[in-house]
Amino acid sequence: MNMILILRVLSVLLLLIVGFMVAPIIVAFFYGELMTIRAFLVPIVVVGPLAALFLFATRRRRGSLSTRSGFLLVTLSWLAAAATGAVPFVLSGWIPGVTDAFFETMSGFTTTGATILTDIEGLPASLLFWRSLTHWLGGMGIIVLTVAILPLLGVGGYQIMKAEAPGPSVDRLTPKITQTAKILWFIYLGLTVLQTTLLMVGGLSLYDALTHTFGTLATGGFSPKAASVGHYASPFVQIVVTVFMLAAGVNFILYYRLLLGRLRVIARNTEVKVYLAVFAAATVAIAFALYGRAYDGIGESLRYAGFQAASILTTTGYATADFAQWPAVAQVLLFALMFVGGSAGSTGGGIKVVRIVTLIKQGFNEMRYLVHPSGVFAIRLNGQVIRKDIVYSIAGFVFLYLLLLVVTAIVVATGGNDIVTSFTTALATLGNIGPGFGRIGPVESYAFFPDYIKWYLSVIMMIGRLEIYTVLVLVTPAFWRG
Amino acid sequence: MNMILILRVLSVLLLLIVGFMVAPIIVAFFYGELMTIRAFLVPIVVVGPLAALFLFATRRRRGSLSTRSGFLLVTLSWLAAAATGAVPFVLSGWIPGVTDAFFETMSGFTTTGATILTDIEGLPASLLFWRSLTHWLGGMGIIVLTVAILPLLGVGGYQIMKAEAPGPSVDRLTPKITQTAKILWFIYLGLTVLQTTLLMVGGLSLYDALTHTFGTLATGGFSPKAASVGHYASPFVQIVVTVFMLAAGVNFILYYRLLLGRLRVIARNTEVKVYLAVFAAATVAIAFALYGRAYDGIGESLRYAGFQAASILTTTGYATADFAQWPAVAQVLLFALMFVGGSAGSTGGGIKVVRIVTLIKQGFNEMRYLVHPSGVFAIRLNGQVIRKDIVYSIAGFVFLYLLLLVVTAIVVATGGNDIVTSFTTALATLGNIGPGFGRIGPVESYAFFPDYIKWYLSVIMMIGRLEIYTVLVLVTPAFWRG
Repeated sequence: MNMILILRVLSVLLLLIVGFMVAPIIVAFFYGELMTIRAFLVPIVVVGPLAALFLFATRRRRGSLSTRSGFLLVTLSWLAAAATGAVPFVLSGWIPGVTDAFFETMSGFTTTGATILTDIEGLPASLLFWRSLTHWLGGMGIIVLTVAILPLLGVGGYQIMKAEAPGPSVDRLTPKITQTAKILWFIYLGLTVLQTTLLMVGGLSLYDALTHTFGTLATGGFSPKAASVGHYASPFVQIVVTVFMLAAGVNFILYYRLLLGRLRVIARNTEVKVYLAVFAAATVAIAFALYGRAYDGIGESLRYAGFQAASILTTTGYATADFAQWPAVAQVLLFALMFVGGSAGSTGGGIKVVRIVTLIKQGFNEMRYLVHPSGVFAIRLNGQVIRKDIVYSIAGFVFLYLLLLVVTAIVVATGGNDIVTSFTTALATLGNIGPGFGRIGPVESYAFFPDYIKWYLSVIMMIGRLEIYTVLVLVTPAFWRG
Repeated sequence: MNMILILRVLSVLLLLIVGFMVAPIIVAFFYGELMTIRAFLVPIVVVGPLAALFLFATRRRRGSLSTRSGFLLVTLSWLAAAATGAVPFVLSGWIPGVTDAFFETMSGFTTTGATILTDIEGLPASLLFWRSLTHWLGGMGIIVLTVAILPLLGVGGYQIMKAEAPGPSVDRLTPKITQTAKILWFIYLGLTVLQTTLLMVGGLSLYDALTHTFGTLATGGFSPKAASVGHYASPFVQIVVTVFMLAAGVNFILYYRLLLGRLRVIARNTEVKVYLAVFAAATVAIAFALYGRAYDGIGESLRYAGFQAASILTTTGYATADFAQWPAVAQVLLFALMFVGGSAGSTGGGIKVVRIVTLIKQGFNEMRYLVHPSGVFAIRLNGQVIRKDIVYSIAGFVFLYLLLLVVTAIVVATGGNDIVTSFTTALATLGNIGPGFGRIGPVESYAFFPDYIKWYLSVIMMIGRLEIYTVLVLVTPAFWRG
């Protein structure tokens, strides 16, 4: 493995992160929070020059990264980002404990949105801005990871993404990672500008609009408001956030296609159709459960149901209501949505719609084999046959995901937590959702967990975010022997 | 499809069932319950002659059953058994509602053990004997189904069972179903005699010993006592039941091997080793959670933990304590065990250990592929490579199982039930366990569910018991076209 090259990439990443710390410093100036500026300046003046020096010293060391180096780099990136990003929280004294600060920052960069804060609005605006910015930066990282890097590494069915743009056509995303990244970030930036503008039209300040846009597009869920998006009574604002949460849960390659005017590719995309169908069905079912019980109007029921369905399905975790108090069937539907997740190549977490579609198709195919044992029944996605080894890979992924869920629930339960809290905490962290039911409901926090559970969950958020294998492969003997 | 032949087999089955109704009549005489005898005589004198007449009238109609007829026959068998077996409950007036009587009898024949009775000990001994006997008969049916029929039908990975005795050796179970059935029933009968004797040694009456043996060996869970096996304070009795529950959750082919002295085949069997390891690990972990909190002694903690772990793992559902009141981590561990189930070829339900082992191995194999993308890594069970199409089949099965779980939880939630009740009801019926947590805890019953949920759950118990595909394939258009 080319450790120098890995460290060079990490140095660039750290430079980027401390570079972005200039943003909360600007916010601090605006809001007169001069006390927190030092908390941001320290990592900038310590980490910045060190990383730059390392890059300069190793400037002649070139080469290419092997697949194995790729795995190590991805995991180290998120660890380094969370460690560096946590520094201002600790130094400012607002989250003095290292455990809590690391948890909160890992939750940010993994776009989970689980928080240990119990009095969010008590924090300085600049720190909350940084907290939301970690989402936005993490979301950027995830898009590049899932669209450009994981297909190359061949993780958990992401080979599908390679197959998605077949043939030597202009349609194909450029194979060069840096160029792919630029296109995707351009789209991400465009959506950011669009949502921020719309939220400001809806009456939000630039600060509120930006932080909520960060949380939305990264499917993160951090809000500087204690009541989350529920802070804003405006139906317009709630609907804008709903639409952009949904947009963030779509494969970003499709936006690229959209820009090229390739509407047919989108209409043929199985995942986006199922994704929208699941959203629509869940919204109607939940609204049906809410109507007449939680809300009086049909429109109101649909709006609250749609918001929460989009929030959980895309693994954002925003709330406009305390859904843990909703009628039982609405809760169970949301709980079921926690198993689904966004689309592959989006900022959404979870198992992902495409994997679930593939396995359901595989399940139904088995029935065809029972009637025609010698028949050949392929699984089709986007009008194309999916290779058997990809289905294999997806089955292995989903099963490991479920196994990790159960293990995590048991670990959480050792802290004396009930079944609902234990399992939804597992789902909400491994799936990068944030809130759940029980003691981690939408109006609760992760503050009460003992330190060992917070550290464990920090790792689980990272494992879930990096599609499990990327992290777990590092602890196999074969990886270090190979 | 050869409908006449299907009906002939069903007629034999019905004759068997009404034949076995002689047993509760004998019990009724003993206990002086002359009022309930009529309830058993009516199905005997109505169904018996009709079935016999049909067999006589069609005695010249021979032929062989196609695979498709096999699926239809299996499902119709359980439906016919539940419908006929429910008659005495209705006629006696002790379970007057058809919904409740059908649910209770389907729960019996599927060896689930979910009950709608709220005052069990108020019922006549003869009816409770019949209730327990449906378990024992259902268990018999399941052993033959999973060892002899499903491998032929190729359902959900049961092809493994074919591969399990490879080569033209004496080791191979006879391919003729009737002969296989005889050998297996001989083993089943032997275990029945053994457990009944041991329980009587432990101080139980013949009646109590028999009914609890029926519930144990079928991994059913019906008990004529309101406090289930907890009725007996004797550690000896509790340990006997624990051991025999575990024994009932083992692949019955292994007992056949044991009789032939083939110990090496058993030592090499992956499933039984993992099964026992899961039991041991769960017992120790649960005992650790109970010790000092629920029970004072280490031995006592281990005994209660072992009983409940065996009961849930094998999907029996007996209880010696109200485990819904145990410390949180013990509850979560039991909840996790609900996903596992017994071994293939046993009377246990659930996903089955062998399927979970296969998919975990597949999950870990993926990591090897990530390090060596062009490598070939096989999945081995019992020292042999498992064909890829079987892994495929298992992945499809498990996923459809999980999908049905979620759908069932949603249906249960429409009755206004919370997350824990909804999901454990789904697990407890699809996995043929019986009790769960929340409103269906070990000291509760299924009585409170509205009729539509009881009917739905009756079908789910059957779908789970018949390994999903056997039933679901009947509702595919391909089945009726093919």
